[in-house]
Amino acid sequence: MPIHYPNGRRFHETNTKKRSPAPKKISYSNRGMTLEEDLNETNRYYLEHGLAVIHKKPTPVQIVSVDYPKRSAAVIKEAYFKQASTTDFNGVYQGKYIDFEAKETKNKTSFPLSNFHDHQVVHMQKVIEQNGISFVILRFTQTEEIYLLDSRFLISYYQNMDTTRKSIRKSDIEKNGHLIKMGFHPRVDYLKIVDSVYFSN
Amino acid sequence: MPIHYPNGRRFHETNTKKRSPAPKKISYSNRGMTLEEDLNETNRYYLEHGLAVIHKKPTPVQIVSVDYPKRSAAVIKEAYFKQASTTDFNGVYQGKYIDFEAKETKNKTSFPLSNFHDHQVVHMQKVIEQNGISFVILRFTQTEEIYLLDSRFLISYYQNMDTTRKSIRKSDIEKNGHLIKMGFHPRVDYLKIVDSVYFSN
Repeated sequence: MPIHYPNGRRFHETNTKKRSPAPKKISYSNRGMTLEEDLNETNRYYLEHGLAVIHKKPTPVQIVSVDYPKRSAAVIKEAYFKQASTTDFNGVYQGKYIDFEAKETKNKTSFPLSNFHDHQVVHMQKVIEQNGISFVILRFTQTEEIYLLDSRFLISYYQNMDTTRKSIRKSDIEKNGHLIKMGFHPRVDYLKIVDSVYFSN
Repeated sequence: MPIHYPNGRRFHETNTKKRSPAPKKISYSNRGMTLEEDLNETNRYYLEHGLAVIHKKPTPVQIVSVDYPKRSAAVIKEAYFKQASTTDFNGVYQGKYIDFEAKETKNKTSFPLSNFHDHQVVHMQKVIEQNGISFVILRFTQTEEIYLLDSRFLISYYQNMDTTRKSIRKSDIEKNGHLIKMGFHPRVDYLKIVDSVYFSN
């Protein structure tokens, strides 16, 4: 019952998630919030406290038909969800460009690479070539563990994906990634990890 | 007749511009391309040549109603254009965060500040505080002149806007901004100006 949580979530954000007909499994230990909602809350915290300016990009939509009624707002009458050509989140932290994608899985022992598209992996590679900071945030919903994994690892796994293995073992994520502790406010303080991984020298 | 120009422009991009019922005035000297289209082409050029990774954010849309027909794609049946809370373009250039808004005017002697919203000006201020590179690209459509103006100037004019003056004089833009030469490919080579303004020391 998301209406119980006054978290600033708006209808369209919930609604745009409904791209598959399967109902979302609600994790009560996390008050029913998706990783995306947790990150939006975290980014609001960073913004309000002057720590970083990082936003989720709007959901890309292909608009086909629009009505322009007199004396009222234009109404989109037909549109379709488009596949994103970049990652979902980007912004600036201490002058540096930050770029990431966030995904969750119900799997317990591995993270399926089907969560990422070719375009997104190409985008991550291009960000790295421009010396931007590029990573993914991966949540295992069953255990509520969240990892930050540098995109270099993801790209490497993605490029070596074959017919026998289309996922990253959780043990590899534990080894190469960085566990992000869940907090209250902000909920997913990933900048702490960014500091230690990308700003340590 | 935009169909004459094989510039990769898609229907939705043209269509989402139609938020006011006034027909867009076409400038034939610029082959009918809007500033946004010119910048998208320029950003594609930068991306393909490994010079920068800068994208326009999708148009923010508030989705109200979605149909999920069996065995076909979800159809958005009712949605509205939302006001953007950030600027339209951002990305990475040589590790640095780049952020800008692009606007055009038919005025000859001044640029109306009504082209910018409070949220966007606050966003520019926050990007500057994070040491990001923040500017606006302003086109005078009558003369085809395009200027890059650092957001500090825009913010200052915006904050000092009063009932008598709600625009920036063109002479002030000429003095404080930087003329971007129109080219063929890329059409609006703003990185050349970014180099000289932000990377000179």
